[in-house]
Amino acid sequence: MMSAAAIDPPSIGEGAPVLAFDVGGTDIKSAIFDANGIALGLRRTPTPALGDDPAAALIEELARLSDELRAQHPEVAPAALGFVVPGIVDADAGIGVFASNLGWRDAPLRALAAERLQLPIAFDHDVRSASWAEHQLGGARAHDDVVVLIIGTGIAGAILVGGEPYTAGGYAGEIGHSPIADGPVCACGARGCLEAVASAGAIARRYAAETGTTPDGARDVIARAAAGDTVAARIWDDALDALTMSLAQLTAMFAPEAIVIGGGLSRAGGALFDELRRRLAARLSFHRLPELLPAELQGDAGLIGAALRAREST
Amino acid sequence: MMSAAAIDPPSIGEGAPVLAFDVGGTDIKSAIFDANGIALGLRRTPTPALGDDPAAALIEELARLSDELRAQHPEVAPAALGFVVPGIVDADAGIGVFASNLGWRDAPLRALAAERLQLPIAFDHDVRSASWAEHQLGGARAHDDVVVLIIGTGIAGAILVGGEPYTAGGYAGEIGHSPIADGPVCACGARGCLEAVASAGAIARRYAAETGTTPDGARDVIARAAAGDTVAARIWDDALDALTMSLAQLTAMFAPEAIVIGGGLSRAGGALFDELRRRLAARLSFHRLPELLPAELQGDAGLIGAALRAREST
Repeated sequence: MMSAAAIDPPSIGEGAPVLAFDVGGTDIKSAIFDANGIALGLRRTPTPALGDDPAAALIEELARLSDELRAQHPEVAPAALGFVVPGIVDADAGIGVFASNLGWRDAPLRALAAERLQLPIAFDHDVRSASWAEHQLGGARAHDDVVVLIIGTGIAGAILVGGEPYTAGGYAGEIGHSPIADGPVCACGARGCLEAVASAGAIARRYAAETGTTPDGARDVIARAAAGDTVAARIWDDALDALTMSLAQLTAMFAPEAIVIGGGLSRAGGALFDELRRRLAARLSFHRLPELLPAELQGDAGLIGAALRAREST
Repeated sequence: MMSAAAIDPPSIGEGAPVLAFDVGGTDIKSAIFDANGIALGLRRTPTPALGDDPAAALIEELARLSDELRAQHPEVAPAALGFVVPGIVDADAGIGVFASNLGWRDAPLRALAAERLQLPIAFDHDVRSASWAEHQLGGARAHDDVVVLIIGTGIAGAILVGGEPYTAGGYAGEIGHSPIADGPVCACGARGCLEAVASAGAIARRYAAETGTTPDGARDVIARAAAGDTVAARIWDDALDALTMSLAQLTAMFAPEAIVIGGGLSRAGGALFDELRRRLAARLSFHRLPELLPAELQGDAGLIGAALRAREST
């Protein structure tokens, strides 16, 4: 198996040509993967306002992007289409159960896409798709019982058991919305969610709220902490403590062989990984400590997972 | 499928006769199950001092008990023997990895038993065995993605994924040793383990330490709390908060359909289950709340699981 880590544009190896879409709240990443597995026409376009019928509007946008990609690459005849979305996703049933920033509830997205696009459709959750890509081609490929965490604007996770996604009807892996202590109220409505303290978004937001200075993202806060800024140091320490708490819970209960961490915060490198390893070891006793590994596919993991799933559907 | 809940002595239905042993730090429960699945000669005997070679000494004790049971029930010819032990257990490999109160490390218990007893041997972890019994015959039988928690002297757990034990080489399910906050140091050496605050043992111990009065177990502390004892009320409230925290973590990450709770504390009934349901719902938001169900096989679940596993090995 090859690593796609150093390859740009991403490649998924030889196989059927496929269309792939990674749908987010702010933008949609799309590409057509050719028979060599090279992503052609890779682009990021703003997610349009989806209006009163967000599921139908999304499928129309996918059809438009699909027509555009096919027109630009007439030499590639896609055999299937894969698309992934955030929120609560029942991939087995093909249903988008809920997505706070896209607006649908119990939308039969896979069936709608199949009818409109007249291709075999693969449909999945964005972070489970990313974890699948990391397992097939990236940082999680050496492990079958593994958790993939994406720490960016929010925190999302996906669990693989025996090399297969563990989904629990779409509800598993919500590590960002696991409670860590009496923390602040989260956007989801619960209190003390990990994401409200330890996401890259929360770290930057908390620093701005306390100092009146808007940092250049969480990594800027980390740099300020290293340079002696005591407010930055406390906010970063809180985030590390909260992450350690959730990783310790995960280790005690689920004992994954590895936890693969991606998203913006993972680019902090040793400042994140070395600290988490140290704190996790200090917090636990007889437990089997997981390897903490960086994700390798980074921002493309969801799209690559969608392409892999599309190929599997052919 | 029948429920064994109301049956005394426990029955596991028709099948091969088997010997079964549930080995604990203080005693060993043993029985011979006949072809009707009735437990004959069910007894609880003190675990002997195991000396310098605890694995060999345990196997000798199982041989002694086995001879005794067979002599008392010569009409039953066991086709296999099942035994379960606490600690870290690699059931696939047949290895007792570690058991703090029994003394072995990386002991090939299954192979030793097979050699000494000349029967097909099933070997498992005590609480995973109990969870298997609850899944086959007890409180967990309606669910395939389910967690079984035993809250007694300590807190132990087992996870079933798709109706099969999820083991992680024996390290999964250590919910008692998941950290809940800055709690007291646990016997395991870590800080703030759930078990150090919320086990029946911890609840009674904390009450005795604070008041100088030794309660008649955790349920006595709960009764005192209901009768207006403010110290008892605070200790019970702390325990419920800690349990809620761990159940919320488990729900966010793993989203089991149900959490089945057994052990001494589960006999507190509504004082435990109603409070946990209320607090868990208040702590979470969009998550899928698990059903909280009482274990049905209670103290016999480990032994029944050992018998079921022994039958599966024939």
